[in-house]
Parts: sequence; C-alpha cells; structure tokens
Amino acid sequence: MHPQTDVGVLGATGVVGQQFVRRLAAHPWFRLRWLSASERSEGKRYRDVVAWRWPSPIPPGAGHLIIAGPSAAGHAPRVLFSALDAAVAEDVEVAYARAGHVVISNARSHRMAADVPLLVPEINPSHTALLDAQRRARAWPGAIVTNPNCSTAILDLALAPLRVFGLEQVMVTTMQALSGAGVPGVPSLEILGNVIPFIAGEEAKVEMETRKILGSLEGPRVVDHPVVVSAQTTRVPVVNGHTAVVSVRLAERPSVAAVREAMTGFVGAGPVAGLPSAPAAPLVCFDEDNRPQPALDAGLGDGMTVSVGRIRACPVLGMKFVALGDNTVRGAAGVAILNAELLAVEGRLS
Amino acid sequence: MHPQTDVGVLGATGVVGQQFVRRLAAHPWFRLRWLSASERSEGKRYRDVVAWRWPSPIPPGAGHLIIAGPSAAGHAPRVLFSALDAAVAEDVEVAYARAGHVVISNARSHRMAADVPLLVPEINPSHTALLDAQRRARAWPGAIVTNPNCSTAILDLALAPLRVFGLEQVMVTTMQALSGAGVPGVPSLEILGNVIPFIAGEEAKVEMETRKILGSLEGPRVVDHPVVVSAQTTRVPVVNGHTAVVSVRLAERPSVAAVREAMTGFVGAGPVAGLPSAPAAPLVCFDEDNRPQPALDAGLGDGMTVSVGRIRACPVLGMKFVALGDNTVRGAAGVAILNAELLAVEGRLS
Amino acid sequence: MHPQTDVGVLGATGVVGQQFVRRLAAHPWFRLRWLSASERSEGKRYRDVVAWRWPSPIPPGAGHLIIAGPSAAGHAPRVLFSALDAAVAEDVEVAYARAGHVVISNARSHRMAADVPLLVPEINPSHTALLDAQRRARAWPGAIVTNPNCSTAILDLALAPLRVFGLEQVMVTTMQALSGAGVPGVPSLEILGNVIPFIAGEEAKVEMETRKILGSLEGPRVVDHPVVVSAQTTRVPVVNGHTAVVSVRLAERPSVAAVREAMTGFVGAGPVAGLPSAPAAPLVCFDEDNRPQPALDAGLGDGMTVSVGRIRACPVLGMKFVALGDNTVRGAAGVAILNAELLAVEGRLS
Amino acid sequence: MHPQTDVGVLGATGVVGQQFVRRLAAHPWFRLRWLSASERSEGKRYRDVVAWRWPSPIPPGAGHLIIAGPSAAGHAPRVLFSALDAAVAEDVEVAYARAGHVVISNARSHRMAADVPLLVPEINPSHTALLDAQRRARAWPGAIVTNPNCSTAILDLALAPLRVFGLEQVMVTTMQALSGAGVPGVPSLEILGNVIPFIAGEEAKVEMETRKILGSLEGPRVVDHPVVVSAQTTRVPVVNGHTAVVSVRLAERPSVAAVREAMTGFVGAGPVAGLPSAPAAPLVCFDEDNRPQPALDAGLGDGMTVSVGRIRACPVLGMKFVALGDNTVRGAAGVAILNAELLAVEGRLS
Repeated sequence: MHPQTDVGVLGATGVVGQQFVRRLAAHPWFRLRWLSASERSEGKRYRDVVAWRWPSPIPPGAGHLIIAGPSAAGHAPRVLFSALDAAVAEDVEVAYARAGHVVISNARSHRMAADVPLLVPEINPSHTALLDAQRRARAWPGAIVTNPNCSTAILDLALAPLRVFGLEQVMVTTMQALSGAGVPGVPSLEILGNVIPFIAGEEAKVEMETRKILGSLEGPRVVDHPVVVSAQTTRVPVVNGHTAVVSVRLAERPSVAAVREAMTGFVGAGPVAGLPSAPAAPLVCFDEDNRPQPALDAGLGDGMTVSVGRIRACPVLGMKFVALGDNTVRGAAGVAILNAELLAVEGRLS
Repeated sequence: MHPQTDVGVLGATGVVGQQFVRRLAAHPWFRLRWLSASERSEGKRYRDVVAWRWPSPIPPGAGHLIIAGPSAAGHAPRVLFSALDAAVAEDVEVAYARAGHVVISNARSHRMAADVPLLVPEINPSHTALLDAQRRARAWPGAIVTNPNCSTAILDLALAPLRVFGLEQVMVTTMQALSGAGVPGVPSLEILGNVIPFIAGEEAKVEMETRKILGSLEGPRVVDHPVVVSAQTTRVPVVNGHTAVVSVRLAERPSVAAVREAMTGFVGAGPVAGLPSAPAAPLVCFDEDNRPQPALDAGLGDGMTVSVGRIRACPVLGMKFVALGDNTVRGAAGVAILNAELLAVEGRLS
Repeated sequence: MHPQTDVGVLGATGVVGQQFVRRLAAHPWFRLRWLSASERSEGKRYRDVVAWRWPSPIPPGAGHLIIAGPSAAGHAPRVLFSALDAAVAEDVEVAYARAGHVVISNARSHRMAADVPLLVPEINPSHTALLDAQRRARAWPGAIVTNPNCSTAILDLALAPLRVFGLEQVMVTTMQALSGAGVPGVPSLEILGNVIPFIAGEEAKVEMETRKILGSLEGPRVVDHPVVVSAQTTRVPVVNGHTAVVSVRLAERPSVAAVREAMTGFVGAGPVAGLPSAPAAPLVCFDEDNRPQPALDAGLGDGMTVSVGRIRACPVLGMKFVALGDNTVRGAAGVAILNAELLAVEGRLS
Repeated sequence: MHPQTDVGVLGATGVVGQQFVRRLAAHPWFRLRWLSASERSEGKRYRDVVAWRWPSPIPPGAGHLIIAGPSAAGHAPRVLFSALDAAVAEDVEVAYARAGHVVISNARSHRMAADVPLLVPEINPSHTALLDAQRRARAWPGAIVTNPNCSTAILDLALAPLRVFGLEQVMVTTMQALSGAGVPGVPSLEILGNVIPFIAGEEAKVEMETRKILGSLEGPRVVDHPVVVSAQTTRVPVVNGHTAVVSVRLAERPSVAAVREAMTGFVGAGPVAGLPSAPAAPLVCFDEDNRPQPALDAGLGDGMTVSVGRIRACPVLGMKFVALGDNTVRGAAGVAILNAELLAVEGRLS
C-alpha cells in the first residue's frame, strides 16, 4: 500500500479548483487537507463559499475545511495543486515554492520556463528530470511542475503516438467548451447559439507548448520537437469537452490503419500505466463517422481518455482526424493529479 | 425599368423554399406566381400548409397561392427556382427542363455535370456559357443552372480574390448552423450543447465544387482550378450562419495587408455589381479579433455579404482567416436569385 | 436472495427504451433477455441498430440480443416493459397481455382505463389491487400496469405529501426537456434559444392522471382525488430534466416549515422503501434560492429523486414551490421498473 | 411637424443603453446629443468603448459622441433617458433631477415612490399627473419618470384590457431571456441547457409594480389596483424575449372569445396611439397552439407589440394564456421612449 500524502489546493473555488477537490477527495494516495481561495473567502468553510456546480455533493471532508487566504503559506501541506488564475499564479506559485512547497500547477505562468517541467505523463515522463535543473538554478526548497493548456493537453495526447511516423506539421481548429473559461467566463448573451472565433492567448499556447511537450530531454534540458503547429481556436456553446479538428503531415506517410493502430496501442512511456489516475486507454478510436462528440464522449475513462474519430486521408497534409477530451480533467485537474502521481513514484514529492 | 418575369418555386415549404418565397415576394424583376410542394400539400393554399418560420409574416401574395404537386409542369412559369431535396431533384429538374423551364436549382444533383453551370455571379459569371453546350448536348427547350453547396458558396467567395496570388491549397474546418439541415433536420436532443463532427457528403462537395467554381472557361467547357482543398465539416448549435476556419497556401506569399486589400476590394466580374440582389460589398473584413460571429454578422448585406476576420500568418500554409456567411441566403436562395438576375441581363431567361 | 425473473423490453431503441436497457442490465432481480423494435430492426443485433446516446457503453449482454419484431409474442419472457409509442401501444400491449404477458407500460394508451393501475409506488401502492378487477373484466392470462406521463410522475411525487393538508387546487407550469420528446423529437432549428408554449396532449394528461394517481382505492376501484389541477406545459432547450413551477391551495393552510417537513419526511407507503430502485429519499428540499436546476439536480438519487426548492407563500393559492425530476427515469423507465419491483414483492409477476 | 428635442442617455454602453441609442438615433422628435457611461469610458468616443451587439452598425451620429462621466451634469440636455444600474441610479438620477433634468428612467430605484409616475402609456397615461405632486414635494427643477421592470411591462399590457372584467387574481410564471440580465449577466456555464428558477428581486417587482401600474389616479395620488399577483420568475437559455404563462381570476367570468376580443381591440387610453413609438397594435393574439415563441415573435411591432396565445379556460382561476414581449424594447428602452413621447405631447419635457 502506498503511503498517504497530505495535499492542498490553491484556488479551490473555481471550475478547475472544484474539479481538484472532487478528484482528490477520493484519491487513494493523497489526503485533501487544505484549501485556499481569494481574500473574501478566507476563514470561511469551503461549503459556505463555493458555488458548487456538480451533480454529486461536495465531498464532506472538503466541505468542512476552512479556507486559507491567497498568500497563507504557513500551514499548507508540502504538496499543493494550483488552480490559480494566471494573473496571480506567477508570483504566488514562486512564493510557495520558495517556502518549500511542491506546486503542481495548472496555470500557464511558468509552463515555458526552461527549467520547469511541462508534463503529460503518457507523453514525456522523463521531463521530470528538469526538476534537478530547477533546483540548481532556483535553490528553492520546493518546486514548480506544470501541465499544458487544456486544448494542448488533449491535442498532444493524440499527436504523441504519431511521433514515430515523423511528425512535421499540425493544423488544428478547436471548438472549445464553456467550462474552459470558468465562471463568470463567457457571458451567456454572447455565446448562446453562436461561435466566437477567438480565445485570447490560446493559439500561441497550443503552438508553443506542443513543441516543448513533444520535445526530448537532452542532458539537463528539453529540446523542442521540430513540429510546426498552426492553431485556430474558437469558443462554442458546449458545456464541457474540447473538440479539435486536426490535419497532420507525417514524414513516413503511414496508412489510416497504421495511424489508427498507433493511437489505439498507445499506452505511454514509463510507469504511467500503473498510476491511479491513468485511464485504461489514454486514446480510443471510433469507427462511427459521427464521433467523437463532447456530449457523449468527454467523460470516457473518467475524463482522462481522449477519443479520436474520422481518421482519414487529408488531400493537403496527408492525414486528418477529430480528437476530443475533457478539458477540466484531461486538460486540467486530472492531468495535474496524474503528474503528482508520477512525481510520487519517482520520490520527488517528499 | 426592367421587364417583369413570372417565376415559381419548386419545393416551397422547406427552410430554403421559404427563403425563396420571402425574397422573391419583394423582388423588383420577378413576380412570384407559382409554388409546388409534396403531394400532401397539393391543392391547398400556401399559408395553410407552410410552417412559416420567420418573424415577418408570409407575404400576402404568396400566402394565397395554391400549391401544385411535385410533378405538375403544366401551368408553371418558364423560370423556376428549385429548393427540392436532392432525392427528388435529379429527375424532377430534368423533367421540367425538358418541358421548357429554366430551372435555377439549389439542389446538388446536377452541379458537377460538365454542361451545367455551377454559378456564383461574383466569381464565375462567364460560366453561363455552359448553357450553350447544355442546349447542344441535351436538346432541352429549358435549362438547368445550379449554385453551390451552402458552405462552398461562402468559402469560395472568400477564396475568389486570392486566385490572383496563386491559390494552391486550402484547409477548411466548418462549423455549420442548424438551418442548413432544415426541418426536421438535426434532432435537438443530439445537438444542444454539442458538436457533431460529421455532415454526410458535405466535405466532398466542398472539395470538388470549389475546383469547378474557381475554374476557368476554356472554349465550351470549364477547366477545374488546380487548388487542392481539404475540408472537415461539423454541425454546431447555431441557428443560422456557417463559420469556416481557413488556411491557404498562396504561391506569391502575399502580406496580410495585401490579402485584406484583395478581399475588401473584391467586387466580382461582369455585370454582377449592378444586379438587384448583389450586396454593396460581397466581402467585408473585420479588424476586431472576435469577429465574425454568426449571431452578429450572418445578416450583413441582407445575408449576401460574406464577412472575414482574423486574417493573419499561418505557420503551416502561409495565411489563415475566418469566414462567415448566411447559409440560407448567400449559401442558397440568395445566390440562386442572383444567378437568375445574371441570366436575365444576359437574356437567357426568355 | 430474490429469485431472478427474465424480462424484455418492447420498443427498446428509443430514448426511454434505452433507459430501460441501461437500468435493467444492472438490475439485481431482473435478467434482460429479450428486446423488440420496429420491423426494420427485426433480426438484427441490438448494438447494430440502436443509436445509443449515453456516455456509458451499451451493456454487453444487451448489445448482443437479437431484436424481435413488434408483434412477435412467441418467445418473449412473461414480464415485459413497454416503451412503445402510444400510436402502437394500445393494440400491441393488449395483444401481449392476452398472450399471457405482464406488460409494465410507460405508454399513455391504457393509463386512464378504470381497471388498469396507474402506479407510482411511493404514492399509491394499493392500486395494484386493480389488477384483480382487470383479471375479472378482461380474462387475460397476462396484465397491463402503467406509470404516469413524465411531468405528472414528477409533479405528483411533490404533491403526495401534501394530501395530509387537504390538497384542493394545483396550478403548474412545466418547462420540459428535449429528452421527453425523444428522437427525432423537437427539430433543433425550432427550439434552440427558444421556448415553445405547447406540448400536444400534455396538459390534459397532467390534469387527469393526477386525480387518479392521488385517488384512493375503494373496493375494486379507484376514486379520483378531488384536487383541481390547471397545467400549462412548455418545451425549453434543456437536454434532460423537467422543471415544474407549482402553486397549491391546501385546506389546512400549513406553514412553509410544515410543507418542507412533510416533503422531506416523505418515504411512501407500503414496501416501496426497500425496493432496489427506490431512492434513499423520494423528495429532497433545497434551501438555496437558485435550486433545483435540471443541469445540476436531475440525476439525484440515480434519477429517482425529485428535488424541490423555493417553498414559500403564494399570495393567490397559499403555497408555492419549484419541483424538478429526471423525466426519463423518475418520469419513465425508472418508475416503471419500480412498479415491477412492487409487483414482484406482491407476487404479481408470476 | 414636431419640434426637435435634444436628448441624452445615462449608462449608454449596456444592453439597454445600446437599445436606447439604436432607437433614439432614428427618432423623429428626439436628437441624440449626449451619452454617459462609467468613469473608465469618460472622454472617449462611444464607438471606441461600446461592445456593440447588434447586427446593424452603430449609428454614425452616436458613434462619434464623446462619453461623459457618470456625474457630469454640466452639459447634458434637459431630457435624459436612464439605463443606469439600480446600484447607482438612485442617487445619480436624483442629482440630475435636482440639476434641472427630466430623467426618464428604466431603473427600479424610484418606481415605487408615491410621487413618481410608473408609466406604460397605453395603460395609465393619466399617471403623468403625479409629476405635479412630485414638483410640489421635491421642489426639483427637473423630474423623474419611470417605466416598469421588463417582465412587468409585458405582463401588464396583457392584463390591462382585462380590468373591465374585474381583475382579481393573477398567477404568472415567467421564462426570462438572457438579454434581461445584460453583460456579463448570467454566466454561460450556468445557463446553457438549463433553467435557473430564481431571479433576485424580480418576483416582488412583478407583484408590486403591477398594482401601481393598473391603479387609478385619485386626486394627487395613485391608488393601487386591488389585484393580487403571485409571480414565479425563471431564467431560460433564450437570447431575447420574455415569456409569461398566466392564469387570471376575473370577477365577470368572461368567455375566451370575450377575452380575446378585449385584447385584440385594446389600443390604450389618451393620445398614445398616435405617438411615434406606439405599435400598430399593442397586443396581438395568435390562434396557433404553439405561439407565441420568443424566437419568432419578440420582434413584432418593432419590439413594442406583446403577443398572446393559448387563451383558454383555467380550471383553477378561470382563464389562462401565454404572453410574450421584447424585454429590451417593450420592457425597457422602447417603453421609456414612448413615455417621453407622451410627456412631449403633454408639454412636460420643456
């Protein structure tokens, strides 16, 4: 049996923060002991301040926790998950790392720093080695580890098995769900029955983060994957589940069957397959023409499986398909917890 | 003043049929005199059978027309607009052409026939010359003229001004509205809060029709444009207005400013600019990042203007942008009526 | 341990039919052995014809069943659940009852017949005694038992605890979900971003069925409850979960606290509380002003709990509140299975 | 020809403020000369700060106006329309009235004050006489006039013709559109595919304002109408148009035909029928069962007509029906402008 580790959540009241609370409350290795939120919630019970938005009730153990303020590093557990807004994450996460905490962050602030791992355990588990460089460079008693932007995490899981074919170019159009913008998020008057063809900063994240995530560890650093990515990101009136329409150029020009087989057989490197949050299959492929659909498929593998459909030839780049994933789980809280599990088995949490 | 021409509508009760009725009822050149629908409506007044779905009332002159059955060629005017389903259009339209009618069709059935014009007046007005070949080949006293699939009509208007830069490749992802599927169309239980990544037959239409529409008339036939198109078409919960996310490879690698200027300055060839249904501008370009949006922009130019936004560099193909248009007007009834106006000024309706 | 009973489903491919299949596949007492659908599905495997619309996969045992045609009484189990459309249910259900089957029906066809139980086990379990009258009158070797219309089942569960206060008048406005109309159901073009203030036949069902359900068994028949009900039923763009806005006149003029207590303490008469499909609480009451909501609360109690909120004084009738329930479970398949469980413990299935 | 009056708008950038700008820009009597908004917009051009959300462009004359700050009374015209939030309206409107401005307000702050007219010109034009009492009591050189809450304005227009039958009780359930909450308004994540059964403060407004609006002027004051109103207000995923499901008790028990005739024949008292913003018919009645619908009917009479359908007997209160209106026009900016027109013809604006 695995030893129990106390953990906390920074920014526990938002959509992703709630997803952390839900999943950590039932986690076999982690004990949720501490929650923080903005100043106006400080000192109150979680259940009295959170606008809980899930059919299942607030986990009782979490509901009774007293909220710490945003900068209260004193009594927090060593391991903290961060669902902070990027606006505050940059400084707050550094402060916690400096104070000795391992911050497993969903925020974008530190993702592209050369000595911060940008992890998806099935794709690049070896990148945890950046933590050694981070310790040397920063001399923090703690650490910062990040996961990708939500669209990127979903897209890159579908791209990872294609690296063996020589992944050269990716063209992706996303149709992103409302949960990705949280609450208040997108005003309902602006999105009901509409498509908004722009999400601030999102395209650059997809284009840059993908190269780091798919990159290879060479000595103490990650060398970006040479793939060129072009992203167009849009918001659609879907509650949860990001859809990505993808075309790829693969140097080896594999057949549809070979691509499908590479995706279906993908399990990821290293110890990931045995981790508690790892789904039975990171990728599943549909044969039905009209799948995947967010309303039907986002929850596959408890939100950790990315589903792919419509794999077929692309007259321009060679191969195209549609990928879908749960942006609050595979794209946020779920992948962060999987990252923590990887760090745990590597002995990097203690 | 232009002489008045009597016209009719085949399949007048569906979404596109109603759009024909609305627009023809107020047309300066055409007098709407005749409507047909399925057998169960035959002999009844239009207003008693149509499930009218527009805020403005049924035009009085149309509401009182008695519905003809699907094959009643007897008393129909010479000029007929066809909003028939493809399932019946193929045979019925030929029968009417054979009986002396000029059928201006929105159905897909005859679009790709070598001697049938597939027209967008701003793009390829010279293709009406195919009617001479059609008359020689078929010996019909009437004729068949077609307009493109709804997504294609919108996309191709945005592509037309780019031909001057050497249009080589097009990657397009569409997000298509519910009105494109009519009534009953997509079941609400399947699309509310969802994206369906498949529309039967749609991608092939976009890929093939574009090459014919952008093609050039050489002697008695159209030579396809060499552009290679890759389309991924999806259905989204939007009432009206198809969005197309587009990347293009242009041989001359023009700047963003040059592309924007080519689009903004596009007026179309031949006599189209003076036709009653021609919008002040076939294309408008937004500078705002979050436009175009179907809820705000589909109705521009009374539904005949295609709006474009987010023109910017594409790391993979060179240039990318978002285009939007009214699928029932620019993509169906509106472009068909514009086709009829072009034929009228060329003397091809009489 | 309860003996296992083989069961089948009539009309297994629709929304309610699929809900039967999902719930019966995991049932502790019933073994799902047989499925029927329309003629065009006859002879095929269930998994090959059903448009399965749930995130969880088709239960394997059900997916491999071969579909029987609509009138194939031959090899069906004695106990059959009917999700047939009313258009065919009337005759088909009688044919099966005549052939010896106990038909537990969700269709409206026989609900108001004097010798057919219209059951909600928490409310009127004694009404199963009508089956004795039914046997005498019809001389069928089988039987027909029905559950209410979906809105009625949800509303009446909230009304049942109020009978003790002298329930005199009920005014109810429903906001009904798309799943209540099935597939193809409501055309998406007509309901997205809209409210349709009419559902054919629905108001009469709510008004009449309620009086029978809340009625009392006197000798061999049910005497209608004297409550007067006025219903206005509307369709709203919600996937699942019917909301009912209710005002009631109660002879005893109880306080809000008394009404809340009566609802919260309601467990239902007879053996229902111990049945496998009975929820821990048939009714739960929210104190939050903004609950219940279909997106958050329809699934409570695995879809069998009706949630109530906003209990407060009504200046016109005395008391008002909002009730919500899962129309495909509490309002259809779930209550029908609960009915079968009640019949099982009463020995009426064999 | 009517003399031209210069006017301004307080709070011009919100949903209702934009609606004022749209309608005033084309008004035959009023010249839009002045706009105010919050401090961060002060000194900028309207077109540079407004998030314009209408298909038609910003009226050029308005787009170039320089925004005044919230308390800049100096150069404002005498006649001001207020679309201010209630949070600031109370004090700001008094300040402007004290500074000599006639404030025609859509805010709730002063509606229920005994000496402030709460006007719907078709219903209670005589209530403008309260302005004489207001002048005596307040000694302001200006004045404040209000219109009802959006739901109330729509409901009361349908109730007004029923006063002749002895209106005793009203039970109303509303299904209110997103535009009623403005931007940011309701978070999209909370309302897509959902119903929220609560709108803060709304029910009390409907219940109280109705009694004042339908009340009669007796000497210097308004005596509330004795009708008892019970309201349940909900939010639904509709862009624009509030639906009200209504039951009424009428002392004289008129027939459905009599109610329909009273509604259809209603034109309103006094000079309202000739005012520029008065619709051809304040009320229209549908015979189709499935009307009115917000998507189809909210725009009738340029948003100033309330549509009614499904008039029929109510087993509880006697008569029931469904009413629908445009909440941003008939329920806000449109009725406020109609109020100003009434004041203009009474000589109360100068």
